[in-house]
Amino acid sequence: MCQLLGMNANKPASLHFSLAGFMCRGGRTGEHSDGWGAAYFEGHACHLLVESRPSANSPLARWLHEQPLRSRNIIAHVRKATRGAVALENCHPFVRELWGRQWAFAHNGHLKDFDLPLRGRFTPVGSTDSEHAFCYLLEALFRRFGHTPPPTPALFEALAGLACEISGFGSFNFLLSNGDGLFAHCSTQLHTLQRRYPFARARRIDDGVTIDLGRHNHLDDRMVLAATAPLTEDEDWTALRPGELKYFRGGQDLPDGVPVAAPLLLAV
Amino acid sequence: MCQLLGMNANKPASLHFSLAGFMCRGGRTGEHSDGWGAAYFEGHACHLLVESRPSANSPLARWLHEQPLRSRNIIAHVRKATRGAVALENCHPFVRELWGRQWAFAHNGHLKDFDLPLRGRFTPVGSTDSEHAFCYLLEALFRRFGHTPPPTPALFEALAGLACEISGFGSFNFLLSNGDGLFAHCSTQLHTLQRRYPFARARRIDDGVTIDLGRHNHLDDRMVLAATAPLTEDEDWTALRPGELKYFRGGQDLPDGVPVAAPLLLAV
Repeated sequence: MCQLLGMNANKPASLHFSLAGFMCRGGRTGEHSDGWGAAYFEGHACHLLVESRPSANSPLARWLHEQPLRSRNIIAHVRKATRGAVALENCHPFVRELWGRQWAFAHNGHLKDFDLPLRGRFTPVGSTDSEHAFCYLLEALFRRFGHTPPPTPALFEALAGLACEISGFGSFNFLLSNGDGLFAHCSTQLHTLQRRYPFARARRIDDGVTIDLGRHNHLDDRMVLAATAPLTEDEDWTALRPGELKYFRGGQDLPDGVPVAAPLLLAV
Repeated sequence: MCQLLGMNANKPASLHFSLAGFMCRGGRTGEHSDGWGAAYFEGHACHLLVESRPSANSPLARWLHEQPLRSRNIIAHVRKATRGAVALENCHPFVRELWGRQWAFAHNGHLKDFDLPLRGRFTPVGSTDSEHAFCYLLEALFRRFGHTPPPTPALFEALAGLACEISGFGSFNFLLSNGDGLFAHCSTQLHTLQRRYPFARARRIDDGVTIDLGRHNHLDDRMVLAATAPLTEDEDWTALRPGELKYFRGGQDLPDGVPVAAPLLLAV
């Protein structure tokens, strides 16, 4: 199995504190040592760093940790190979272009005998069930909506249906982003957490490091994290329900992908 | 304008010596300071490092230089923005998947009023003429060959025709690779160089550093470099002719994309 970590924030934010704990799971506190990757969106494109080696002792992961990289949408993954060799082409996140936007996708779980057919619009480069499912998902979106990207509620509804269909083959926890927001689907295991004022002190489960998040955030900073397993001890991680799809934008949950309306200003 | 550097080798090889000189052109010895990128193939996938900042003072470029990264096919680019903002999505190389392989592409030149239509199979994420041309090129290949990747000679012929067509809009020097080999097209300016035994001493034009290539290569190492302008003083760089398309594989030129037959072993 693998583990997922994603972030959506209302302003470009650092994921360093949480990512450092997560990266420990790639060979130190976890067995997910067959590769790792991280996609940092910047505008409509993303930086994609992937390696087929353990994140816990990767020079690239160390370099990443030393950079002042900030993003509104980040997806990270540590891999324990179940299907597909230990190779660069099998490392998540996978990235493809659809409707002139880059889409990054990472999966946790195992799809048994996953054989839904592809039509050649998107073809896996590697040999994982995860990349196959990603290609199927994008092809299905393209078949349904054609050349015009749909509004978010319609996209949310389509993704919910596809996630349900693919989950019929096994566990299909995934994170998906095109740089606008973050879709998070729980099939068996996925937790979320919102960080906002007043920020907590948080202790990393993987190495015990404690941080006062209030000292590293502004009052109006707001972000949602999604992770396979909680990364900190002193925060309120929520387990999503099996079958639940979430869409986070602006560092908050948008039910059914529908933007929350601004409060009405009543004339007095 | 921009500058290109590509390498094809018969074994995974380091490009560090040449790349270090090339990177100087991103803001120190050259004006190409609006971004840089490098694609290193590893199997069927590639590491893609891109940044919308000058390579000459980039921490990521410095990190890259300190790693023992080796590859059979590398494409690098330093950008001087002529069309499209200084932004990550406008940095080369661009990467897309076709026929289950990643294709990396970088362009030097300027296409004026380039408006050949796209049909939605590949859509630019950014706003450069270069990415538009890359999308057009891949769409045309897909239209011509459908779902089955063609043998190299047919691919070479198709690319030559497309390169000629697109060159009608301006200068279209480009490097293209899917990890098997390196296509290099000269529209106005592109130089190539083969390094093989006996290896020379070479002096980098950009910073005067000299190296004895024989001390860093094995007797059977062989590689071809393609660059907008020569990177060293003491080697025999060859200017390609306008309109010339080359295909390099195994560190050597394959005329018309046709593999050179192995020498016949005559029975005696």
